[in-house]
Amino acid sequence: MTVTAENWLEGLVDEIRPALYGGAVSGYLPEFEAARVDDLAIAIDYGADGILTAGQCHSLFTAQSVVKVFTLLLALHHRGEDYVFERVGCDQGIGSYNSLETFIRGSGVPVNPFVNAGALVVVDMLPGSDPDSRVRNVVDFIRALSGNTSIGVNTGVARSEHTLADRNRALGYFLRSHRLISTDVEELLWAYCQMCAIEVDVVDLARAARVLAQARDVVVEGQVLRAAHLRLVRRLMLFAGMYEASGQYACDVGIPAKCGVSGATIGVVYQRMGIGVYGPALDRSGNSVGGLRVLRQLSGTLDFD
Amino acid sequence: MTVTAENWLEGLVDEIRPALYGGAVSGYLPEFEAARVDDLAIAIDYGADGILTAGQCHSLFTAQSVVKVFTLLLALHHRGEDYVFERVGCDQGIGSYNSLETFIRGSGVPVNPFVNAGALVVVDMLPGSDPDSRVRNVVDFIRALSGNTSIGVNTGVARSEHTLADRNRALGYFLRSHRLISTDVEELLWAYCQMCAIEVDVVDLARAARVLAQARDVVVEGQVLRAAHLRLVRRLMLFAGMYEASGQYACDVGIPAKCGVSGATIGVVYQRMGIGVYGPALDRSGNSVGGLRVLRQLSGTLDFD
Amino acid sequence: MTVTAENWLEGLVDEIRPALYGGAVSGYLPEFEAARVDDLAIAIDYGADGILTAGQCHSLFTAQSVVKVFTLLLALHHRGEDYVFERVGCDQGIGSYNSLETFIRGSGVPVNPFVNAGALVVVDMLPGSDPDSRVRNVVDFIRALSGNTSIGVNTGVARSEHTLADRNRALGYFLRSHRLISTDVEELLWAYCQMCAIEVDVVDLARAARVLAQARDVVVEGQVLRAAHLRLVRRLMLFAGMYEASGQYACDVGIPAKCGVSGATIGVVYQRMGIGVYGPALDRSGNSVGGLRVLRQLSGTLDFD
Amino acid sequence: MTVTAENWLEGLVDEIRPALYGGAVSGYLPEFEAARVDDLAIAIDYGADGILTAGQCHSLFTAQSVVKVFTLLLALHHRGEDYVFERVGCDQGIGSYNSLETFIRGSGVPVNPFVNAGALVVVDMLPGSDPDSRVRNVVDFIRALSGNTSIGVNTGVARSEHTLADRNRALGYFLRSHRLISTDVEELLWAYCQMCAIEVDVVDLARAARVLAQARDVVVEGQVLRAAHLRLVRRLMLFAGMYEASGQYACDVGIPAKCGVSGATIGVVYQRMGIGVYGPALDRSGNSVGGLRVLRQLSGTLDFD
Repeated sequence: MTVTAENWLEGLVDEIRPALYGGAVSGYLPEFEAARVDDLAIAIDYGADGILTAGQCHSLFTAQSVVKVFTLLLALHHRGEDYVFERVGCDQGIGSYNSLETFIRGSGVPVNPFVNAGALVVVDMLPGSDPDSRVRNVVDFIRALSGNTSIGVNTGVARSEHTLADRNRALGYFLRSHRLISTDVEELLWAYCQMCAIEVDVVDLARAARVLAQARDVVVEGQVLRAAHLRLVRRLMLFAGMYEASGQYACDVGIPAKCGVSGATIGVVYQRMGIGVYGPALDRSGNSVGGLRVLRQLSGTLDFD
Repeated sequence: MTVTAENWLEGLVDEIRPALYGGAVSGYLPEFEAARVDDLAIAIDYGADGILTAGQCHSLFTAQSVVKVFTLLLALHHRGEDYVFERVGCDQGIGSYNSLETFIRGSGVPVNPFVNAGALVVVDMLPGSDPDSRVRNVVDFIRALSGNTSIGVNTGVARSEHTLADRNRALGYFLRSHRLISTDVEELLWAYCQMCAIEVDVVDLARAARVLAQARDVVVEGQVLRAAHLRLVRRLMLFAGMYEASGQYACDVGIPAKCGVSGATIGVVYQRMGIGVYGPALDRSGNSVGGLRVLRQLSGTLDFD
Repeated sequence: MTVTAENWLEGLVDEIRPALYGGAVSGYLPEFEAARVDDLAIAIDYGADGILTAGQCHSLFTAQSVVKVFTLLLALHHRGEDYVFERVGCDQGIGSYNSLETFIRGSGVPVNPFVNAGALVVVDMLPGSDPDSRVRNVVDFIRALSGNTSIGVNTGVARSEHTLADRNRALGYFLRSHRLISTDVEELLWAYCQMCAIEVDVVDLARAARVLAQARDVVVEGQVLRAAHLRLVRRLMLFAGMYEASGQYACDVGIPAKCGVSGATIGVVYQRMGIGVYGPALDRSGNSVGGLRVLRQLSGTLDFD
Repeated sequence: MTVTAENWLEGLVDEIRPALYGGAVSGYLPEFEAARVDDLAIAIDYGADGILTAGQCHSLFTAQSVVKVFTLLLALHHRGEDYVFERVGCDQGIGSYNSLETFIRGSGVPVNPFVNAGALVVVDMLPGSDPDSRVRNVVDFIRALSGNTSIGVNTGVARSEHTLADRNRALGYFLRSHRLISTDVEELLWAYCQMCAIEVDVVDLARAARVLAQARDVVVEGQVLRAAHLRLVRRLMLFAGMYEASGQYACDVGIPAKCGVSGATIGVVYQRMGIGVYGPALDRSGNSVGGLRVLRQLSGTLDFD
């Protein structure tokens, strides 16, 4: 039997699976509990060379924190770099992603757009006259990036998260007390919960990631996404995308990536590939065990910096 | 002319007045701006020996953070010491009274009952089936302590504060995410704003403070306030009552006291006197310049520890 | 048999002893390991009314952090209050007594004279042309306060501590980088280690504490210790003397006190008594289990604030 | 006149020079004061394509913190990745490079090898039976990387820094109290000061940087520097090389680089170039104004990620 790329990826799934049992499915939302600790699906979009998949690649899951990558890019596109980085930092940060240590002392500015406080500031910047239209704009943006017009919000998950949002609500009111957001906090939170609950599959993530991998300006549905913004998003993903494990991840793996609590993982290899992984088993830092393993294996086989 | 106690106090007012110009009236609420920087009123309740006053001693002002002394005592009375101090610390703390540094790392427990987060936890413990009845219970409690049945809430000030309460709202939701409060945060905040807006004069404060000065259990309107609770409140006032200036105040002056942003100040000299001061000029730590001066002068003339 | 004061104190020892097994003798220095977890000795100096003792009241032990009380008083006497509190804070502080969190952010000033960094600053202020003469001055001062001219330094313990002093050395160099000390750090440390190793018994501590309890200026060997300085020392002991348990201790017990890692404990009841306890079993905050129990029991029988 | 690469670089110097006046030469050591705020020299090593220079490219200056790049690489080579990163973190960190906030809470491990505490841990790991032989090994290593056998230590600058080293001494003793270093702190510090005082010119830095830019294992004087170690060093430089400006630098410029307080700057473009800059005018974060400008300009003309 010939070793094709397709069965190499299936082999990778088999190789990684045992490690998944060392992680745990998040208990954050009751909806996550349906996931199995050994679920693992992968899609890699090579651009012109096509797309490779392994595992249940059409199973849907919610993007959760992976959506922060898309909201950041949309905010950069809509507002420009200066506006965005006056209201949110670009540091790696310390402490847990939803803790009170994710604000810069004094100014109250969140350390980066991927901690929850920073993501809320970004949602406040998105285009749309009201929170609902912002959610639609984010859904449309992800549809355009992935080429899948059936993408939508899982309202049940959004509602479920909304009932547990007291910590994020605290972050929101703290931001408003520093005048870093202008939207009503309740509306902002509901928009944020809906964005986190956008449902995708690994192919959607891989296709969207392939766009992020571009070296040049990209035209998506008539809008020009600037190369400088794509690069900024990749760089932040590289060194701040993995919560408190970001530094170690950047040193060890070095592929710009972002995980979500659902197990969603997105990775971007400059000019070469977009990666989508679904692996709901999480490690102690809240990152997907399977997602990280896939990225680590790929980084070992690629020649990049 | 003979130097009587009464004109000694008037002399003290004259002596202190020039220092008031070094402070500033708070701009926190528009209602405070009516106050004059050189306003100063004092009342001292000597118990059986009567009450001395100087300045506009029947002018009304809102208690603001001074109310935290009474809510703490009422919570101790209602819930007992163990219940209260499982949910709020008894440390001096560092950082500003409404900052995110007023929580103990990890547990999320506020450092003491006088920082805003701690005061919110205390309001959550007060007797009453709903927030409004808690406000009434606090009003009734202060009426009983001061013997003035006309005390009530200045609803305009409460509403004004409520519109500016985003920082306190953030503190409230943070507490709820740590399950340290059970009331709805919005209702809790509205109750808190009303309690801060209870209107008193310096005689009311002096009379209530005289009760706090007791060495033995006190019966107030049929309720027995335990000596141990009075002592606890005095001790916390001693070393945690003056925001970030608490340590220096405890060393220099040593009279258990508490200031509010309106300029309200209460002081308690064990077994001897209750002190009420109104001095809206505040120093950089947010304490009343006049209030502190009165207490410092008294501490120099008294023999106590 | 009549219940005399003497056998009341022996009864107290018996009552407290079982609790000692819940603590542990410090392993910080090998010399401490000779101590037994159930050792307990008490002395109470009532002034004119004489001195009561229980347990092995003439056993010697090193003062350790208890000496910080005497070095502070001597520095205040020698330099005055303003000089001292420009170089060391008077806040309760947070964090462990020898941690890097005991400096005030920015200025590098230690939070109070009882954390190690603060104690080093105080040693730098003591009278004496060189570190050795400073040690002699502290020994002489404690001899004078306790009326025991045989008090001296246990050089073996001092040397033992000196070999383990890297953390304190770090604190010392940090202070020097902020220009808060001027002595050579090595000399300062050796002086500090010797001061911590001054050997006393509980009667010495009780007698010295009785001097600290005075309401008025005290003449000790021709020197006038000012009442204001005694009061300052008592107040700091009250709210900052028990490491991270200081706030709870101040609320619960309220007797100005200080413990050392050897189990040495000193307590001061204003105008009434000086207390010395030796109880090497320590609790998790590093305070003497026996020392705290004795003080708690006494606070329950005394009428003070 | 034709625009050659050589005169393009001279043009760059002219373009950047006005911005230098917005910075300031460090007053940290008296030796730095001889530098002129508008000094600027650049060398770029293109590998086989030769080396370009502009400005006073043979003026000597001390490497200062730039040496941390070489000591890290030598430690990785000598001890391996696991040994190194058990004793020092790989996070971006917050706070100033020599502050007490550069330790990870609890463990006392420095946040990364480029803050002073981390660099001291790295010096402790270097090959050599004693501190002096470690210094020689670092000198030899830099000689080998740059191909310049005349490189040596400026002992005057080393001595000058050593007299000002109290903050670093504090960091050293703190590390030893956590058992993170085993060398005598004084010897370690003297070795560190000498390493910081290694004198180079921009051509030396460019040539050494060109080695760091390699994709594959490199043989330097018979030793095999592993590609994985070169990559690790580049990645840490990328996101932690610019003190507190590291995050912003990584997003904006994205070329792995490191500055020193002397104005020394090194930059590494993967597989393409090694960059050395000397520009003693520093910005408020302590980075070289000229060094950063050169790197920013280059990043705009290069196609990399």
